[in-house]
Amino acid sequence: MLLVADNLQITNPLIDAALRDLNPDPIHEMVKKCVEAGADAIDINSGPLFREPEKKMKFLTETVQEITELPLLLDTTNPAALEAGLSISRNRTIINGFSLEAVKLEKILPLAKKYDCEIIGYLLYPNSHVPQNESERLNIALEVYGEFQKTGLDNEKLIIDPVIAPVIWENGNIQDTEILSVLRNLPDLLGFSVKTIAGISNLTSGRGPGERKLLLERCYLPMLAAAGLHMALLNVFHTESMQTAKACNALVNPKIFTWEWE
Amino acid sequence: MLLVADNLQITNPLIDAALRDLNPDPIHEMVKKCVEAGADAIDINSGPLFREPEKKMKFLTETVQEITELPLLLDTTNPAALEAGLSISRNRTIINGFSLEAVKLEKILPLAKKYDCEIIGYLLYPNSHVPQNESERLNIALEVYGEFQKTGLDNEKLIIDPVIAPVIWENGNIQDTEILSVLRNLPDLLGFSVKTIAGISNLTSGRGPGERKLLLERCYLPMLAAAGLHMALLNVFHTESMQTAKACNALVNPKIFTWEWE
Repeated sequence: MLLVADNLQITNPLIDAALRDLNPDPIHEMVKKCVEAGADAIDINSGPLFREPEKKMKFLTETVQEITELPLLLDTTNPAALEAGLSISRNRTIINGFSLEAVKLEKILPLAKKYDCEIIGYLLYPNSHVPQNESERLNIALEVYGEFQKTGLDNEKLIIDPVIAPVIWENGNIQDTEILSVLRNLPDLLGFSVKTIAGISNLTSGRGPGERKLLLERCYLPMLAAAGLHMALLNVFHTESMQTAKACNALVNPKIFTWEWE
Repeated sequence: MLLVADNLQITNPLIDAALRDLNPDPIHEMVKKCVEAGADAIDINSGPLFREPEKKMKFLTETVQEITELPLLLDTTNPAALEAGLSISRNRTIINGFSLEAVKLEKILPLAKKYDCEIIGYLLYPNSHVPQNESERLNIALEVYGEFQKTGLDNEKLIIDPVIAPVIWENGNIQDTEILSVLRNLPDLLGFSVKTIAGISNLTSGRGPGERKLLLERCYLPMLAAAGLHMALLNVFHTESMQTAKACNALVNPKIFTWEWE
């Protein structure tokens, strides 16, 4: 399970200001801290970038690449920003992401083909509603894969996100238990060992006590790891969650176990 | 997932001395601490009790019952001791346990029928060797269930223990990942929702750094909970493991989620 930092977010005022002023320093510092925390990849969550999308995303992508050769996830709904980032990225780059929403199929998915890169497909309805059970998620996975196949890209370029439900939703914890089954069943359903990713912060979004949120995160990560999740998108400054995830990797990987994991 | 205290062990010198002197105080104190720590049941691990088995097990069982009405697991290979405990137990009582070993089938399993109580069946070969993969474990489960059925007891009286492998065994972590699949597949294999139990301390037995052992325990508990494990036998004084297990219960149970779990 690769650990993708979700820390580089436009919702962080420091990052927002750095982007506004095209000041690389706070971004360098943030990325360095993510690398030190053990991140395996960096999600660049720029938001929609209504103003100067190309310039802003090029700045973000280049600034991150100055610090690290880790894989990048370009996390924006703005196709112009996305293409600008893709045009200058040297690191392994993943588009985050598309869904069955018409504008995503028309404007985002083709960029994966044009730049021959990986892309995350969300298990969401075309209106962005979240499916309510395993059966709905698996049906949507077939549709997402169908749309992906039309690009002609190799299967290994697809990464599916089953979309974790907040536990405080009416049936959120039941959905999140079903997502474990979705992850186990996707390879058989699609006929290949499709890669998967999940955004951990979704689990505890909304109101709730901070310590219990972190505890719940540390409970769900091992469940996801055991279900075969390939990439977890999380706050890599949650030190205990990172320790848990790395211990999970030592436990569930088909290698000889050693206590000396990093 | 019920949390069964494995703390009341004859290998603890305080408990050994209390049993030798028939002194209830250290046992009372230990059981009180287990209850305070959140135990849902108490395993009475008396060892084989070569001397005065009936007297010793009656003393242990009665002493524990003076403190708590929680379910008891009578954990001994000595049939005389076991029957003495069963004869005076008032709490819900579980025999821990039998396997395909001839002496267990002849001397232990019939006591479950005689006292109409639950019994743990271990997925071990008749020579007590540990099976090496999922397929072997499932085959043994069929044999264990076959022997159990001969007693005529209701299916709900059977609790299967898949026997966690120490991770430091050559393929221990691979076996422990397969055990998750065993737990998920047992109900379909046996045709009813068979109860299951696992001894968590097995996971990290042998040499290894203490902090990482605890961390690994906190990783494996959620995996077991998500796989549907009914009872975890563990050291209930591992506070963080207990917190993790209780958070898992809040997450995977098919109830409306609340942050207010105990």
